[in-house]
Amino acid sequence: MFRLDHPVTLKEKPCDILTVGELLIDMISEAYDDAVNSNTYSRFFGGSAANLALNTNKLGLRSRVASAVGKDGFGAFLTRQLEQEGIPTDCIQVTEDATSIVVITKSRSTPQPIFYRGADFQLNFTPELEHAVKQTKIVHFSCWPISREPARSTIGQILSAARAAGALIGFDPNYHPAIWNKGEDGVACVKSIIGQVDVVKPSKDDADRLFGTDTPDNHLARFLDLGAGLVILTMGADGALVSNGKDKLHVDSVATEVVDATGAGDAFWAGFYSGLIHQLSLLDAVKFGMEVSAYKLRCVGPVRQYPDIYQLADHKHGGEQRS
Amino acid sequence: MFRLDHPVTLKEKPCDILTVGELLIDMISEAYDDAVNSNTYSRFFGGSAANLALNTNKLGLRSRVASAVGKDGFGAFLTRQLEQEGIPTDCIQVTEDATSIVVITKSRSTPQPIFYRGADFQLNFTPELEHAVKQTKIVHFSCWPISREPARSTIGQILSAARAAGALIGFDPNYHPAIWNKGEDGVACVKSIIGQVDVVKPSKDDADRLFGTDTPDNHLARFLDLGAGLVILTMGADGALVSNGKDKLHVDSVATEVVDATGAGDAFWAGFYSGLIHQLSLLDAVKFGMEVSAYKLRCVGPVRQYPDIYQLADHKHGGEQRS
Repeated sequence: MFRLDHPVTLKEKPCDILTVGELLIDMISEAYDDAVNSNTYSRFFGGSAANLALNTNKLGLRSRVASAVGKDGFGAFLTRQLEQEGIPTDCIQVTEDATSIVVITKSRSTPQPIFYRGADFQLNFTPELEHAVKQTKIVHFSCWPISREPARSTIGQILSAARAAGALIGFDPNYHPAIWNKGEDGVACVKSIIGQVDVVKPSKDDADRLFGTDTPDNHLARFLDLGAGLVILTMGADGALVSNGKDKLHVDSVATEVVDATGAGDAFWAGFYSGLIHQLSLLDAVKFGMEVSAYKLRCVGPVRQYPDIYQLADHKHGGEQRS
Repeated sequence: MFRLDHPVTLKEKPCDILTVGELLIDMISEAYDDAVNSNTYSRFFGGSAANLALNTNKLGLRSRVASAVGKDGFGAFLTRQLEQEGIPTDCIQVTEDATSIVVITKSRSTPQPIFYRGADFQLNFTPELEHAVKQTKIVHFSCWPISREPARSTIGQILSAARAAGALIGFDPNYHPAIWNKGEDGVACVKSIIGQVDVVKPSKDDADRLFGTDTPDNHLARFLDLGAGLVILTMGADGALVSNGKDKLHVDSVATEVVDATGAGDAFWAGFYSGLIHQLSLLDAVKFGMEVSAYKLRCVGPVRQYPDIYQLADHKHGGEQRS
């Protein structure tokens, strides 16, 4: 069992975190406008897995991302962005399908994304990917790769290899019905994964989409019942609930200002993982995640650089063995 | 057989032309640049079937387009554009899939399109569509709807209904391997359609892609052998070859200046069909197509309005019955 007041012991490995899943183009409307009138769009590096690799890298971790892109200008752009950040691209697979894009029309109310999935889920369990899994302390993935084959089977193989290699496994249950194929039960698929991972961080919205609207406490209990080792339920301004199945703690939000909430979840994950790698206690890692997330909330667009103070020193005070 | 020196007799119907196929978003890079560096894109009304409906409408024909769009901002935008032009939208089907888009990065060499096909081929043979087929003089489609189901089957039903109703059937063999699903023989599919239509207008590039590089005369013979009633092979600056299987004529290009070649093929079709509707002889209709195409070649982007002189008066001198 995870102890909330202790660090998590992680095996010494040359890579801190491997994120698996979506590396794609975000096409974002220039103006805040209704969906019918926005005529100009800008292209951004995007995808939760890719952004988490980028964010953890900016926090000083040794990060790698595994995804698939097309043989096209978008794929070349994304790969070059990773190279410029110094993130290895040996697990970026190039396929015949078009690089995935998400079109987002900015809106004063709720932005409505349109998903165009091409290459992102064409991920195979190659020798390079297997090697990367064996070489990392943490493996992280979201709903995107489990929503379609062959990435779904690849995640299965990654989970086996990660467990065998003693890596910590984190899963972001960022469920959205539109990423699943019609007729497939995405909710059942997400639920079936939760018992196979160590850490899960649903937002309140994710949990509502998966289980129907309910109280945070009930949501927390459901994720624990499904077999997650540690659940962090984030609730925006209301902070987060953390539980290992035995202890339950509430952590306050430290956000002072919300300018742009896009990517706040990925920023939390980045801070949290950075805390784990630097051997903070689990609770302090969650608090550091909240702090990084609050920093992101004050910035428009992706964070270019985090303050130096966010580059944690290694604490090296040993840790509690998991399980 | 079509006589080149005679008009084609068309049955009196309330609609001049029904185009079937792709209504989609063209996302075009703002700057001429390589694919990796273009960061800003503009959204345009696009798709060959949709543009042909728009172009024939601008030339004074009563036009209608049948296609499918998503329940999203792009679909709403496209439908509204049609409404603003006064084109009926009762054959625009709204589906759960995302509105199709084509991303085009402008290039000094050859622009490389990236295809994101969602809703466009989700076209069903609805009572509204059947009614529209029965009410039109001309039915036109391209390779897009025959490349994927259910649109492929819908085209089969449209062809039966159009033949029964005595409509002229035109087909644009704008073959591109990327619009077919992997593993499918798109070339065979295109060839199987050619014997089922009256008029086919390949460009030299289309023909090269379908049959391998060859002379225009050999290409012309192949389309005729496959059963097309009338073949118009367009060859850019070299004009066009026209044949009904018996007579073969060369028509010169009238283009004086090439500023933007995008959409020139659709402009030709629009002029050609306008000539047929106004009972020009087949040869004069081809020449009028060349003229409208030359006008388009001088304009950057889509033609907003054609000169008044392009609105042909009805010639009403009767015509030759097809058979």
